[in-house]
Amino acid sequence: MNSNEVVIGIDIGGTTTAFGLVDQHGNLRAEGGIPTQAQQPAETLVARLHEKVGALRKSLAADVVLRGIGIGAPNANTRYGTVENPPNLNWGASVDLVQLFQRYYDLPIAITNDANAAALGEMHFGGARGMRDFIVITLGTGLGSGIVANGELLYGATGCAGELGHTVVNAEGRVCACGKKGCLETYVSSGGICRTVFSLLAERNDASPLRALSYQQLTSRTIFEAAEKGDSIALAAFDATARTLGIKLADAVAHTGPEAIFLFGGLAAAGNVLLVPTQRYMEEFLFRPYRGKVQLLRSSLPEGSAAVLGAAALIWHGI
Amino acid sequence: MNSNEVVIGIDIGGTTTAFGLVDQHGNLRAEGGIPTQAQQPAETLVARLHEKVGALRKSLAADVVLRGIGIGAPNANTRYGTVENPPNLNWGASVDLVQLFQRYYDLPIAITNDANAAALGEMHFGGARGMRDFIVITLGTGLGSGIVANGELLYGATGCAGELGHTVVNAEGRVCACGKKGCLETYVSSGGICRTVFSLLAERNDASPLRALSYQQLTSRTIFEAAEKGDSIALAAFDATARTLGIKLADAVAHTGPEAIFLFGGLAAAGNVLLVPTQRYMEEFLFRPYRGKVQLLRSSLPEGSAAVLGAAALIWHGI
Repeated sequence: MNSNEVVIGIDIGGTTTAFGLVDQHGNLRAEGGIPTQAQQPAETLVARLHEKVGALRKSLAADVVLRGIGIGAPNANTRYGTVENPPNLNWGASVDLVQLFQRYYDLPIAITNDANAAALGEMHFGGARGMRDFIVITLGTGLGSGIVANGELLYGATGCAGELGHTVVNAEGRVCACGKKGCLETYVSSGGICRTVFSLLAERNDASPLRALSYQQLTSRTIFEAAEKGDSIALAAFDATARTLGIKLADAVAHTGPEAIFLFGGLAAAGNVLLVPTQRYMEEFLFRPYRGKVQLLRSSLPEGSAAVLGAAALIWHGI
Repeated sequence: MNSNEVVIGIDIGGTTTAFGLVDQHGNLRAEGGIPTQAQQPAETLVARLHEKVGALRKSLAADVVLRGIGIGAPNANTRYGTVENPPNLNWGASVDLVQLFQRYYDLPIAITNDANAAALGEMHFGGARGMRDFIVITLGTGLGSGIVANGELLYGATGCAGELGHTVVNAEGRVCACGKKGCLETYVSSGGICRTVFSLLAERNDASPLRALSYQQLTSRTIFEAAEKGDSIALAAFDATARTLGIKLADAVAHTGPEAIFLFGGLAAAGNVLLVPTQRYMEEFLFRPYRGKVQLLRSSLPEGSAAVLGAAALIWHGI
């Protein structure tokens, strides 16, 4: 492979769609972004992307070769190339996104969800280089996961393996957006820690600045800032979040036996206030043969471009 | 491969060690067994096996070729070829079992634990033929598991992936032999369902023939027979077991996305009284994209020879 080859990485979000031209070393040679316009059909987005990516390509030397297009999108099914019932896009039950891109490009095109893209990005350009068994957990509005085992991302028989956000913490627990009860992401995510704070405010009497905020006002960032100042409710919320996450990560280790677990995304930015107790709880609940052998790490990919790098890695991984 | 090739399959148990000569189609061409003599060192067992297997080989035609030796043993580490702290064998901290066999044989030799062997047996000779993603759960004294993803058995970074028996059901729950609390196998296994019956006898007042039995007398077979006769305690114990198993199987699906889960071993022989409610509970707790897509099946391998077939499959899988 020569250094004049790039892959188009595209990250489709509910608000913004980011894209970039990424070489085999993970260098973002050029980048851009457009509003997703979630109410418009997918065709429109693809047409607009085609135009913008074409302009971006011209910013590079004329001999740069496109090797493929990797796309990260919510509810993406890698096996079928489709996006199914995306929560924040008005695209309907199923859109064959790969086919829409094939109208414009005669290149390898692949699609996956954002957590799988993060795992591939970590494997090719981040802290998981050289690892054959690891897990990436994305902690944002929800909890996503990408599992790599034997050097390959797991898609499973249905094309959607690695949905740790919907494992069961408490069968009679919090109602999840997915329709089930007690899913991990209702406890461990930006939204989950807010719910935990409200539960603690209801159960305990500690004075806390968090008592001044409505449910709509509260964010995980506010909780993090309160924890940094030693607020007991915020600290208890992080501890409870870490314990739940630690237990479920110990379970995940008992499935695929990873050498490392990477945390990525908004809530992971809380750093040690989450990472240190999570590692401790995970160790406590690990089956003995795994103890001391699983690293818990923050993703080493830059937050701003990780999604585009991960999407591009989908193609570089296949080459 | 020609049909005159066989693999030596060996299953080392705490009481008996079974062995057989298995062809590529899973036919057991000859078989035998010896007492393990758990108090003797591993060297002694290997020397005795060498003698017996030699005699067995002579019972086949002279042109039969040995292709390798596959061994199933408790606490086997495939990566290192070792058996570590086996619970029912007086072998010490670590025995290099592969090396011991190499004293006698210049053949490919591999070792794995019984649940992984069951998974390989199911893949090559049983109901999982042609499947790339499935899980085998062995329900005996404990709960073991072998996970196949992307067509390969998962060993993980430490060589011991697939220990679902030690995932967490209840962090404050029953004490497990492994030293942790609330492990799945303390609820779902032959021993687990006995504990559940004792818990139900303590909580409820239903008349039941099970009230006549001591903890030492009670077996999962007795509970099964009581359930068949409609005993309410036994039925409640199977329902509780099925619910716990169903929830944890739904979690397992969210990790690797299998198309089928096979139940194997003593408790699985209970059949529909366990299988039907487990499937129902699993469906209830499955994340929506998986619903209706995961079969729950009984192993199709013959109980008596499954361990030897599985051990042999370890070699046939590698060829």
